[in-house]
Amino acid sequence: MSLLLIAPNRDLNQLSEELQNIDPNLEIDIWPKVKNKDRVTFAVAWNHPKNVLGNYSNLKAVSSLGAGVNHLLNDESLSEEINFARLITPSLKSEMAEYVLQAVLAYRQHTTRYTDQKREAFWDKHKLIPKEDSVVGILGLGEMGLSIAELLILNGYKVNGWSRSKKDVEGITSFSENELGDFLNSSNILICALPLTDNTHGILDLELFKKLKKPGYLINVGRGQHLIEEDLIYAIDTGVLAGAWLDVFEEEPLPSNHLFWNRPKIMITPHIAAVTDPKEAAEQIIENYKRSLSGMEMVNSVDRKKGY
Amino acid sequence: MSLLLIAPNRDLNQLSEELQNIDPNLEIDIWPKVKNKDRVTFAVAWNHPKNVLGNYSNLKAVSSLGAGVNHLLNDESLSEEINFARLITPSLKSEMAEYVLQAVLAYRQHTTRYTDQKREAFWDKHKLIPKEDSVVGILGLGEMGLSIAELLILNGYKVNGWSRSKKDVEGITSFSENELGDFLNSSNILICALPLTDNTHGILDLELFKKLKKPGYLINVGRGQHLIEEDLIYAIDTGVLAGAWLDVFEEEPLPSNHLFWNRPKIMITPHIAAVTDPKEAAEQIIENYKRSLSGMEMVNSVDRKKGY
Repeated sequence: MSLLLIAPNRDLNQLSEELQNIDPNLEIDIWPKVKNKDRVTFAVAWNHPKNVLGNYSNLKAVSSLGAGVNHLLNDESLSEEINFARLITPSLKSEMAEYVLQAVLAYRQHTTRYTDQKREAFWDKHKLIPKEDSVVGILGLGEMGLSIAELLILNGYKVNGWSRSKKDVEGITSFSENELGDFLNSSNILICALPLTDNTHGILDLELFKKLKKPGYLINVGRGQHLIEEDLIYAIDTGVLAGAWLDVFEEEPLPSNHLFWNRPKIMITPHIAAVTDPKEAAEQIIENYKRSLSGMEMVNSVDRKKGY
Repeated sequence: MSLLLIAPNRDLNQLSEELQNIDPNLEIDIWPKVKNKDRVTFAVAWNHPKNVLGNYSNLKAVSSLGAGVNHLLNDESLSEEINFARLITPSLKSEMAEYVLQAVLAYRQHTTRYTDQKREAFWDKHKLIPKEDSVVGILGLGEMGLSIAELLILNGYKVNGWSRSKKDVEGITSFSENELGDFLNSSNILICALPLTDNTHGILDLELFKKLKKPGYLINVGRGQHLIEEDLIYAIDTGVLAGAWLDVFEEEPLPSNHLFWNRPKIMITPHIAAVTDPKEAAEQIIENYKRSLSGMEMVNSVDRKKGY
């Protein structure tokens, strides 16, 4: 039996080492060097080429190398019998929460504006955006969304949450699927922490931005495909939104001629909000490898119908 | 009896209004328009011209318009009988703490570097600086220093504190005046929240930076005069420090030809870490005005020998 690592353009050697540290007898293949396809029962995949995994006849389960699984759900060559799992490590959640807290503070304190002014040797003060105008609204209260909510509540922010069904979490004002309008009306800083599914694709559009309480601001740590990019530019240029802080994009790396680069009110980070730690990842992968072999349900297993 | 507001280049009308809101009968003079100097018993001052207050014969007390009082202590025309007070409002403390938290997060997450990359349409990832390499050391555990410590502890940081005498505060590893070396050896991110006195003038020098645990980083929210500016540039250029985040400068506004502007590893904000809120300021000023008239000790009164 073998465990396959497949993630083009990513260095998988450190992950492979961490896996071997836990189980020195583990047989590991790193795609595209695969000794014997029929021996592969478990795969760890990130943005793998479609249909490649279709002819691994003994594949029982696939773990994503991150929190997102849309690259697995979109691969129709993966038969329905194959189980999927997400990879959500403790540091992934805390990094994500700290990334968002930083974006919220930087927005309120005008940090990127001061960085821009620095390049011009320009001394000009801007008024802090008060906490009263910084009510946070989190789209998606999964593990990531809840981790973000927890840290923001700890730091004294009013937090609204929107999820399929209402959640009873201390400190969060919870809105269900059909209360999106009310949720938006009472939130200034919108944080997208949704999984990418057919229902959430393109959810961040002009119509939604217009419903946001003013001043409105967007932080996207979900997926680039959640956002209608031209709607964001229009919303910022017409004053519907005060700005945006983006870590994910429809095309990554963001092409150098993309219009986002030139917008001072759009902050861009290169998909670094939460980076999977190889050691923690190895622990969860081994756990799920064992569970899948013994027929147990995996940790962070995916409901393929719901899409997360 | 009259209360004098004196702060050249600052708009004092809002503060004056807030004072009148609390006490409509209050007689207020805004310098340089003073009806009768002899009626002035209390002054609120910020960077006032030296010796101007010397000929107010009935002046009993002066409140600073901020946390710093060195502009009062340096004015030899203010006789020893005149009492001084600092102005420390609740929002001043929370703003200061949030400013420092933001600087710490931005340093760890390379925010200003990503802002610079954005201007070049350049997509490049940098490794998060882990919390283990982000032990915080706070110089000065007065009201500001303690407020910073509290928020950083809440956010999971290890916090060291250096103050004249050891303090017993939960979560802070406290070092006394003669343990500066040990304090520096065990701190990565040095935060200067000291008052400006003869003892602390120029304390942030190359010798001190060299004792800091690596990687070392400086955040200065004290006064510009705490820092030997050429030592900071030398420390950063030679790799002694990873960078610095500065809100205060020897000369403010920072001259447009100053070398700091061109150093990518030095972040500059225009003295905005904590801005006194006029409403809260008015409340504390009125309280101290009443106390000074009735001979009571003022809130946040200054020990003129200690210098804070």
